Amino acid sequence: MKSGRDISKIADGILEGNRRALARGITLIESYREEDIEVGQQLLERLMNASGNSVRLGISGVPGVGKSTFIESMGLDLVDQGHRVAVLAVDPSSPYSGGSIMGDKTRMQNLTQSASAFIRPSPTGGTLGGVARRTRESIMLCEAAGYDVIIVETVGVGQSEYAVADMVDFFLVMLLPGGGDALQGIKKGIIEVADMLVINKAEGDQLALAKAAKKEYQQALKLISGNGGVPAEVMLCSALERTGIKEIWQNLADRTEELKQSGEFEQRRNDQLLSWMSRLTEQSLLQRFWGDEKVRKLAEQCRNQLREGTLTPLQASKKLISEFLRER
Amino acid sequence: MKSGRDISKIADGILEGNRRALARGITLIESYREEDIEVGQQLLERLMNASGNSVRLGISGVPGVGKSTFIESMGLDLVDQGHRVAVLAVDPSSPYSGGSIMGDKTRMQNLTQSASAFIRPSPTGGTLGGVARRTRESIMLCEAAGYDVIIVETVGVGQSEYAVADMVDFFLVMLLPGGGDALQGIKKGIIEVADMLVINKAEGDQLALAKAAKKEYQQALKLISGNGGVPAEVMLCSALERTGIKEIWQNLADRTEELKQSGEFEQRRNDQLLSWMSRLTEQSLLQRFWGDEKVRKLAEQCRNQLREGTLTPLQASKKLISEFLRER
Repeated sequence: MKSGRDISKIADGILEGNRRALARGITLIESYREEDIEVGQQLLERLMNASGNSVRLGISGVPGVGKSTFIESMGLDLVDQGHRVAVLAVDPSSPYSGGSIMGDKTRMQNLTQSASAFIRPSPTGGTLGGVARRTRESIMLCEAAGYDVIIVETVGVGQSEYAVADMVDFFLVMLLPGGGDALQGIKKGIIEVADMLVINKAEGDQLALAKAAKKEYQQALKLISGNGGVPAEVMLCSALERTGIKEIWQNLADRTEELKQSGEFEQRRNDQLLSWMSRLTEQSLLQRFWGDEKVRKLAEQCRNQLREGTLTPLQASKKLISEFLRER
Repeated sequence: MKSGRDISKIADGILEGNRRALARGITLIESYREEDIEVGQQLLERLMNASGNSVRLGISGVPGVGKSTFIESMGLDLVDQGHRVAVLAVDPSSPYSGGSIMGDKTRMQNLTQSASAFIRPSPTGGTLGGVARRTRESIMLCEAAGYDVIIVETVGVGQSEYAVADMVDFFLVMLLPGGGDALQGIKKGIIEVADMLVINKAEGDQLALAKAAKKEYQQALKLISGNGGVPAEVMLCSALERTGIKEIWQNLADRTEELKQSGEFEQRRNDQLLSWMSRLTEQSLLQRFWGDEKVRKLAEQCRNQLREGTLTPLQASKKLISEFLRER
């Protein structure tokens, strides 16, 4: 257990922009040990007021789409422009590697070496809710350490995308040229939460294909976007040849500026914070509920009775809730 | 309060296909009075085993798209083929009429007069969760009364669509020819939960436009559908001229047959029943939680402390949950 002095030391280190202190802080936040969680929250409490001064980007796409190359290219550009860039990975249950996709040591080699960049691999294991909480809190620690562009990378195949879309300012989905077929791996509904689609590998032979794909997506988004406001932007790039990346950043920077001017940026951040509290509360209440042994046993009985038609769903729900509240 | 004998009488009446008994049963199910709810559940319990033998269709679309004309045309066709058709409306919070859109007495005049049809206007007022529960239960009562095609109509502008999509076998979204512009009113995300898009008013001058729209939607759906399996079907009809309706029904009937053969139909119905129990339980637990006066007061304090940065969201959620469970 860390003492109050240890926490102060880590907090001061983070505020000074010390990367080792930041890494230690995130390790605390990611820990499952009850006492670490306690200390992690105290640390966060100290740093909350120093956080928030950044642009938060979510970047999603299936493995092979070129996310790492893209993030490295953009990261190096941003560092050149004087930004400090933190990259966090979210990957609660990768079906590909049996663990963290970020485990690949050769990724983002150049960015890793930059003194203005901080790269944190995916926390391993844990529920989606847990990963989402820890990623949100890690964002705040990175901000307290002076990183002003935070990139959260997800693999685009699970449920984490929705959680991430709700903790960033802009959610980007990366795609390959070639339209429908190239989308095979991506999860249904992800396109809908995107603020921008980035078609990568718009280079050489594939440039024409990429341009055609851009038009198709623009049209599809216009058709599908419904009443939810402006359809997502569609932009082209080649992460490999480092073309189009600056334009993508410029677009995001311009939109950030507009949102800040209108006050919407602040408002959205505030809404995200409050809804985060609500959802965290609901998640853990429901976790306690369904994790309760008596509730679980009764629920199994109820399911059988439901199938037999001897109990209605409303009757079942009433029984389950009184069982849960009775024993408190 | 209804006596046991009253319930038996209503239950028997429903099983005999008596429309007045069915209407009385649904009124019980829709009531907010504690004792009616109790009796309604007893009624449902008696009838659950007689329910299930139907095809359940959700039909959504903004006002003006021609839902009523479509449902009437299809309903009359189905009645001609020997089916018995029930139409239920879901409209928890219409921004258009200040109440029930189904209140319009002139709607579905011909279908209303058929002895093989039952039309029930929207329950007025209530939360989305409540409306969803009552609609689900009303479906079961209609089935117990021998209706073998149940149509649930929604207005396509709120949150009810997701609840409805989860209680039907097929969810249809009706659109006008003309693509993006015609979609103005529809809620974002609804296209994604559709099993079929129906482009209405494919008639006269608009036929070419409708055909073009069909192609556009097919392409868009292919692009957007991601990993979720087969893109939704897109079909044309003219509800006014009664063309294309039979083909739409035939398509649904064929798919039903396939799903039944493979066992998927039964499986999905069963999954829907169990997840309905879970969600009903979670909804009412959360309703009790946020409705608790002490929790509400504390939550207000927590929100202020969050904004000030003197409390973390995790700390807040822990405080709220112990407050709720402490007083049990």
